[in-house]
Amino acid sequence: MSTPTATTDDLHAGYVHRPIRRWRGGEVAQLTDAIAEEVPIALVYNERPHVVMMATPRDLEDFALGFSLSEAVIAQAHELEAVGTQTLLEGIEVRLRIPPVCAEALEARRRNLTGRTGCGLCGAQALEDAVRQPAPVAGGPRIDPATLQRALAQLHERQPLNVATGATHAAAWVRADGDVALLREDVGRHNALDKLIGAMSRAGEDVQQGFLIVTSRASYEMVQKAATVGITLLAAISAPTALAIHLAEETGLTLIGFARREGHVVYSHAQRMVGALPESTS
Amino acid sequence: MSTPTATTDDLHAGYVHRPIRRWRGGEVAQLTDAIAEEVPIALVYNERPHVVMMATPRDLEDFALGFSLSEAVIAQAHELEAVGTQTLLEGIEVRLRIPPVCAEALEARRRNLTGRTGCGLCGAQALEDAVRQPAPVAGGPRIDPATLQRALAQLHERQPLNVATGATHAAAWVRADGDVALLREDVGRHNALDKLIGAMSRAGEDVQQGFLIVTSRASYEMVQKAATVGITLLAAISAPTALAIHLAEETGLTLIGFARREGHVVYSHAQRMVGALPESTS
Repeated sequence: MSTPTATTDDLHAGYVHRPIRRWRGGEVAQLTDAIAEEVPIALVYNERPHVVMMATPRDLEDFALGFSLSEAVIAQAHELEAVGTQTLLEGIEVRLRIPPVCAEALEARRRNLTGRTGCGLCGAQALEDAVRQPAPVAGGPRIDPATLQRALAQLHERQPLNVATGATHAAAWVRADGDVALLREDVGRHNALDKLIGAMSRAGEDVQQGFLIVTSRASYEMVQKAATVGITLLAAISAPTALAIHLAEETGLTLIGFARREGHVVYSHAQRMVGALPESTS
Repeated sequence: MSTPTATTDDLHAGYVHRPIRRWRGGEVAQLTDAIAEEVPIALVYNERPHVVMMATPRDLEDFALGFSLSEAVIAQAHELEAVGTQTLLEGIEVRLRIPPVCAEALEARRRNLTGRTGCGLCGAQALEDAVRQPAPVAGGPRIDPATLQRALAQLHERQPLNVATGATHAAAWVRADGDVALLREDVGRHNALDKLIGAMSRAGEDVQQGFLIVTSRASYEMVQKAATVGITLLAAISAPTALAIHLAEETGLTLIGFARREGHVVYSHAQRMVGALPESTS
């Protein structure tokens, strides 16, 4: 993704200060607190608005690139060009350019949909479009519980926005040794993941050399986005859904849930977790 | 909303059992655990598919009615007729009938959108459509911290799906005395709220005689949906976003966040909280 000379990306810290009244133990205090921003972000490809997401307005170039990759709008990062970011009264418009062949494929998706309906889940407007199955993933690191614990212990201090506001999710890319390489935050968990995927791409991270931790639940779309870019192991702090497990099984992704200090749960493809297979525990 | 004679609504418990491997303290146990279902649910109005949401497949009639009201597809519950619910391979289709005038308005919204783009946030495809401002709310109960605490204490035992799976959000309707009257659960927080709004309408609950608690964060859409149906007070267990606070201020809704045992925070229209205004605390 090539970067334009002017961008408003860094004008936003992702939070604002607001007056609040805090009630605690029978006392009310009037204070000022940090509140996470949630702003409509429109992604516009080749002059055509594609999607509006409610997101935290920072790391928008990561977001645009990550969304474009994880939703298969483009196949390679170099296919996306950032034209500019404009803050409007109603939200933020991120203007992007993609090759004609990608734009035509996107237009074909749109034509396919608009005949039937006017609204949907990220473009999936009829049932058969709702769950897109990514190509299978293979390879990836094999990690042990200590590596996962090492990464979990690093998460808190890497989430300044959540420390300030208590309102944001995080997605972290962890190297095979358990060190957090990159982390992105957003009020939406799928946006945090898209921002991370964009940041990974820009930093040249190899998806075969690490794994993903998300501080949220693992819904199907988290597995779908991770698998689409070739990530092989996804650990969520909270619970997965049945569809997320199904998609993980089908695509070859190792899905871990309830990843916490006291332990974790493996839901699919346990071969990537040292000690999780029966032969090594019996 | 009139009910058809046959519905598959109650065939789904909202969770399934799956084999898992739980790692704890160096030991791996192979168990079976309850996992929340997440299924594409298509709402089809007058034969036209309108939206696909990833939701927990229970209380679907509540969901259809609540979504139709909170997204202003209809203005009155009696305008919606449930034609049938069909479980397909790809998900569940909920077929609904609305009066021609509502269908025309929905169609006009669609036409307005499809010319510009093919995908969006619940039909809001360009920035100016993303944040729909509901009519102002007024009246409603005035509650004290003890009432809020009374309601919070009842939440856990009313969330069987979350107790089983750890994966679901809840939305609860609380009478002015602090008793939880209705509660609905879903993997999506906005779906839980839509289900609750549908259940409230079917039970004939008066929105002026109670308040709302959600076990999630308060994003703008939670405030938008609540205000659209006339709810005057929304308490969230976790943090609000800046846009949620702004919308609450604008619409006259009392927004409370971090509603927990140890206290809570009032973000807007504190006049509905006894003891939250400066004159009563100084």
